[in-house]
Amino acid sequence: MNPRDTVSFLSDYGLNDEFVGVVKSVVRTVAPHTTVVDITHGIPPHDVRAGSLALVRSVQYLLPGVVLAVVDPGVGTDRRAVAVEVGGGDGAGEGDTAYFVGPDNGLMAAAVAMAGGATRAVELSDDAYHLPSPGLTFAGRDVFAPVAGHLCNGVDLAAFGPAVDPVTLRPGILPLSRREDEKLLAEVLWVDCFGNVQLNVGPDEIAGDGDRLALRWGHDQVRTARRAAAYGDLEPGEVGLVVDSYGLVSLALDRRSAAEELRIGAGDAVTLEPPS
Amino acid sequence: MNPRDTVSFLSDYGLNDEFVGVVKSVVRTVAPHTTVVDITHGIPPHDVRAGSLALVRSVQYLLPGVVLAVVDPGVGTDRRAVAVEVGGGDGAGEGDTAYFVGPDNGLMAAAVAMAGGATRAVELSDDAYHLPSPGLTFAGRDVFAPVAGHLCNGVDLAAFGPAVDPVTLRPGILPLSRREDEKLLAEVLWVDCFGNVQLNVGPDEIAGDGDRLALRWGHDQVRTARRAAAYGDLEPGEVGLVVDSYGLVSLALDRRSAAEELRIGAGDAVTLEPPS
Amino acid sequence: MNPRDTVSFLSDYGLNDEFVGVVKSVVRTVAPHTTVVDITHGIPPHDVRAGSLALVRSVQYLLPGVVLAVVDPGVGTDRRAVAVEVGGGDGAGEGDTAYFVGPDNGLMAAAVAMAGGATRAVELSDDAYHLPSPGLTFAGRDVFAPVAGHLCNGVDLAAFGPAVDPVTLRPGILPLSRREDEKLLAEVLWVDCFGNVQLNVGPDEIAGDGDRLALRWGHDQVRTARRAAAYGDLEPGEVGLVVDSYGLVSLALDRRSAAEELRIGAGDAVTLEPPS
Repeated sequence: MNPRDTVSFLSDYGLNDEFVGVVKSVVRTVAPHTTVVDITHGIPPHDVRAGSLALVRSVQYLLPGVVLAVVDPGVGTDRRAVAVEVGGGDGAGEGDTAYFVGPDNGLMAAAVAMAGGATRAVELSDDAYHLPSPGLTFAGRDVFAPVAGHLCNGVDLAAFGPAVDPVTLRPGILPLSRREDEKLLAEVLWVDCFGNVQLNVGPDEIAGDGDRLALRWGHDQVRTARRAAAYGDLEPGEVGLVVDSYGLVSLALDRRSAAEELRIGAGDAVTLEPPS
Repeated sequence: MNPRDTVSFLSDYGLNDEFVGVVKSVVRTVAPHTTVVDITHGIPPHDVRAGSLALVRSVQYLLPGVVLAVVDPGVGTDRRAVAVEVGGGDGAGEGDTAYFVGPDNGLMAAAVAMAGGATRAVELSDDAYHLPSPGLTFAGRDVFAPVAGHLCNGVDLAAFGPAVDPVTLRPGILPLSRREDEKLLAEVLWVDCFGNVQLNVGPDEIAGDGDRLALRWGHDQVRTARRAAAYGDLEPGEVGLVVDSYGLVSLALDRRSAAEELRIGAGDAVTLEPPS
Repeated sequence: MNPRDTVSFLSDYGLNDEFVGVVKSVVRTVAPHTTVVDITHGIPPHDVRAGSLALVRSVQYLLPGVVLAVVDPGVGTDRRAVAVEVGGGDGAGEGDTAYFVGPDNGLMAAAVAMAGGATRAVELSDDAYHLPSPGLTFAGRDVFAPVAGHLCNGVDLAAFGPAVDPVTLRPGILPLSRREDEKLLAEVLWVDCFGNVQLNVGPDEIAGDGDRLALRWGHDQVRTARRAAAYGDLEPGEVGLVVDSYGLVSLALDRRSAAEELRIGAGDAVTLEPPS
């Protein structure tokens, strides 16, 4: 028995319905000693990629315990519901997650890898640990929440269903940037609430380039972007290339939304190249 | 004395103002041992019906304790502020709510009934249990929150004010569907964040009909809807009649918003009838 | 050592990113015994004034402990990160805040004053109490959250960095109304989620005026406003002058949004004068 006391919860439920409140209530009905910490519920509906990236950005900061993650466009299809153990489930070391609970659709894959990789996994098929539904199964409420609670109570992973070979878990698809001659072909990973535009580019990937780069995107749009150590170092209206708080290169303006200024969003392709 | 440790909180306050944070702080100032679980605060402002339905969908999943519900268009009028005891207040059995605190405007009526019915009720008129206000009474902050806290501390219901005969509590108005020859006249109860459209129709009400029904709504709009066991069973663009996670018939599309596709919203009238 | 167990948290992070969840996780990783209560995270991005006013409205209701406030347009500039002790840090008396943690940009000034005034302050420069960042410092996550946690653990203020003379803390700018002959020149402080429009006017400032006043705003717009004790006392469509739940004069309509009706928002100038 290995009691745990925190469930960190991410979903695409939004906060206008009662879904988040009901899932939390179910977790704590099963495991009254737990605290549920909301990571975010503002993932766009069914956007597995956005949910996956938010988990990756968060996972190293989360409390030891269970991560409950629900972005699940394939609910009701044959996608598996799974619980995944990482690091032997002992959450050794401060900040270590022990279990991930959610759909096997790639949502949790990158975060599982960051947390040390899956050591065991099971399919959540034993409905003794689920709630009955008066109609369609509401996976968050009826399957994932009670399982997260039972994990916090120390129930062993093997109780929830048959073992799944971790190598068969669906991988996440994280877009990689690539070089093409002098061009770096990249993609927008995320736009945060301040309009900063995170790229799938590490600082080393542009280390050999000059201080200024040409940024191309959309329909032949082009603009000069300058490396800067901080937003405040940018001139008004100047587009900066700033290594953000996650260690990735981002497009930013000082005290303004780069995403609005450039009309650019998550998933958009961008090119960085030496100025002509 | 019967201490309780959870307050489940629903309101139309939204999250952009500090109202929710202040109400929680007041509850926990009075009763520091409590946990406040947000059901939702995204009820449209003053929409008693939407709040009532969200409570009904939630109540069986909530933790034992107090439900604090505030959707209160009549604040400052003669609507009563009440606390209602259900099931003798002992919250017998897992998941049982013991008390509801809020305005007597129908908001809590259906959930109270689902929770076993009112056994006692009082009007919250003893201001020894309220906070003083520098101006207008902010009922959530000054009346409902401290009373919820005192209930969690085990104060008896009778302390808060004169008894109210439960039969005089304002009933909720839940719209009923009705048959008219071969037509089933129904209404949209709720559109969830994924765009699924819940009707006030149980599966038994269309059990005698065929697999396909004509759906009529708005200005003579009509479309064929097909019964399906799950969203994933629907063809692209096909409108499904799916028994949702609450046991009611809903209009749904696979991975798309039925509400957007049909341009239909809460309160709209719909008709289901055999295809012509 | 003076352990504290509540962190009340306000920011402009919104809830669509994982920022709030990560900051909470960091606080509780440092100080697992704490509860983090969200005041609101819906402050418009970088709107120090709106954040300051929300803190002022909230502070007297908050639980004893630490206020963590982050609205920080100057992040990365030379604005100081500070922790401020109020009332000797003992949080004497129910509801007393002991410490404020955040940027020294005026955000916390008025709330600090309401909480009794600063008795000590320090600049948060000792990075032994911070988290390392893989790139830009994310002040909420890397500086303010861990410091709030360490304060809850009883670490003395002096440990976090050099003392700051409280008189050098940046003051808040609260707009004052003023008389000009018979006119009262005022400003909209805040529009709440119901559309009530709070002015920077106390009831005594219009005590000598009649029951009806001319309200002027925008481009020569004018309308009669009538004093009322409650929203419900207003006729349909009538603009009321109601002393709100904070003791300030507000413009309100019964069950409708005064802000929408008048097309008026935070920061707008208004004039109240005797009707002509």
